Amino acid sequence: MQSGRSVEIVEVGPRDGYQGIGPFIPTQTKIRMLQQLFDAGLHRIEIGSFVSSTAVPQLRDTREVLAACARLQGLEPQILVPSERRGREAVDAGARRLVFVLSVSEAHNRNNVRRHPLESVDEYKRLLDAIPAHVKMRLDIATAFDCPFDGRVPESDTLALLERLIPLRADAEICLCDTTGRADPAHVESLLASCMQRFPMIEHWALHAHDTYGLGLANVHAGFRRGVRVFDASIGGLGGCPFAPGATGNVATEDLVWMFERMGVTTGVKMDALVPIARVAAHLPGALPGGRVRDALTARPEACPAQAAANA
Amino acid sequence: MQSGRSVEIVEVGPRDGYQGIGPFIPTQTKIRMLQQLFDAGLHRIEIGSFVSSTAVPQLRDTREVLAACARLQGLEPQILVPSERRGREAVDAGARRLVFVLSVSEAHNRNNVRRHPLESVDEYKRLLDAIPAHVKMRLDIATAFDCPFDGRVPESDTLALLERLIPLRADAEICLCDTTGRADPAHVESLLASCMQRFPMIEHWALHAHDTYGLGLANVHAGFRRGVRVFDASIGGLGGCPFAPGATGNVATEDLVWMFERMGVTTGVKMDALVPIARVAAHLPGALPGGRVRDALTARPEACPAQAAANA
Repeated sequence: MQSGRSVEIVEVGPRDGYQGIGPFIPTQTKIRMLQQLFDAGLHRIEIGSFVSSTAVPQLRDTREVLAACARLQGLEPQILVPSERRGREAVDAGARRLVFVLSVSEAHNRNNVRRHPLESVDEYKRLLDAIPAHVKMRLDIATAFDCPFDGRVPESDTLALLERLIPLRADAEICLCDTTGRADPAHVESLLASCMQRFPMIEHWALHAHDTYGLGLANVHAGFRRGVRVFDASIGGLGGCPFAPGATGNVATEDLVWMFERMGVTTGVKMDALVPIARVAAHLPGALPGGRVRDALTARPEACPAQAAANA
Repeated sequence: MQSGRSVEIVEVGPRDGYQGIGPFIPTQTKIRMLQQLFDAGLHRIEIGSFVSSTAVPQLRDTREVLAACARLQGLEPQILVPSERRGREAVDAGARRLVFVLSVSEAHNRNNVRRHPLESVDEYKRLLDAIPAHVKMRLDIATAFDCPFDGRVPESDTLALLERLIPLRADAEICLCDTTGRADPAHVESLLASCMQRFPMIEHWALHAHDTYGLGLANVHAGFRRGVRVFDASIGGLGGCPFAPGATGNVATEDLVWMFERMGVTTGVKMDALVPIARVAAHLPGALPGGRVRDALTARPEACPAQAAANA
């Protein structure tokens, strides 16, 4: 769907951002935010996950939120699932686009879903067998670049895992996730080049960048240069990095939109509508917001202090 | 001095970062910080400016700080000056590397130095006539990309100003400054390509990026890709954007070092030594710090909460 001068931004705040927030966000607030995000031009939104509500209590109302999405004509809600069983539940509840998540590194996959990555591959196979073919599928490849436990992940490990996954369903969107935020632009370009060369049949590559070390937009830009046209982002930069207390994680949707629109790349998102939503999101009780553009857009030239030769 | 795999980071915190801090930083503190920055591997430091001490009271002790630099064998202190008179004063005080600042946009140049840009060109000419040839010269081209008053600056304006400046002293280092932080990677690449094509005789291009809109590192990376090997940065991200109250400005030195070292590009800076200095800088009374890496490096994998399928 994208030409060279447009990108699709997948809003993941309602899943990846909210899940780390302690105080429960009322379901009606979630639904209202979805409506606003949709109105601002974000047409694919990861609205929640089907996971253990003990592990992620914030998302225990995903079923209700999903049902409310039916009222938003044109919205593509995306649901994260870690297993065949959760996938079936999601589809039964009306999901038409699933995200299956697994990690390249064994340590992270065990920590996240309690399985060896190869067990997750088997689980993915079972999920594909269990759901109708018209349900769209994305693979979130966590620790594709770097693992919080093991450090830099060899490209060959990521390629080897994809080698097993891709033949199972070639039209799945493949999203490379920089789980720790420790990828750098050279790494992003290198891994993407290897992936695209090895798997030329894959039409849809996506990138999930983190801004933990300030490299979020630099990595997104590197992905764009390499031909990626689908990027995850979280409204208000919601979503702390669980491995770095106090540090932010997800790139902020408003920062991504800002960069692309400045570059003349169409996102379909209306900045004027987005920024007020981002401000609300950043002030949700318990939120750990990120991103820069919200503050920067308070800029008022008339606030410039009288000073001589002070600023370059 | 740089191969393709090394860059020089010019530490500008002691000038560009400190100048916006209200409470006076004791001269001895400034000198101690310089010593530490130098020990961490930062060998070119913009240590202050010769400007009106009414306009920038924080830097009224630049003369004293400059004198103390003589004790740091190998340090190249750099001094910003806005006029011939200030340049002569700086050289008389021992400066061997000057920065002359002017803006492409008339509105910003008048606001900053109370002159039309062409009057600043004449002032630069007078400065060059007044100082010995062995004094190294840099030109800080403010609003090379964007102006807080007039918005995006046409490339032709920046090129036209350089056309007048460069013949006056071809061995000056030319630093393009993204004064507002509103440049984007495509803009950086495009302007640099035009500059390098038009002025092939210029050996030393530098980039002064701001992170106000989160694009600091993305723009630095774009500059690097285009062949720039000298980058300004400020310890702790010190230096607010005077046009956006509450928003940060300069890219943080520790973030730049992080990115380049991750990419395998040598900076000569020891990250382990740098981060504690950045923490001190960020906590100077009245400081408005920026950057991400300081917080991110508190990461502790063992802090990972037990949660299933929560993080991609």
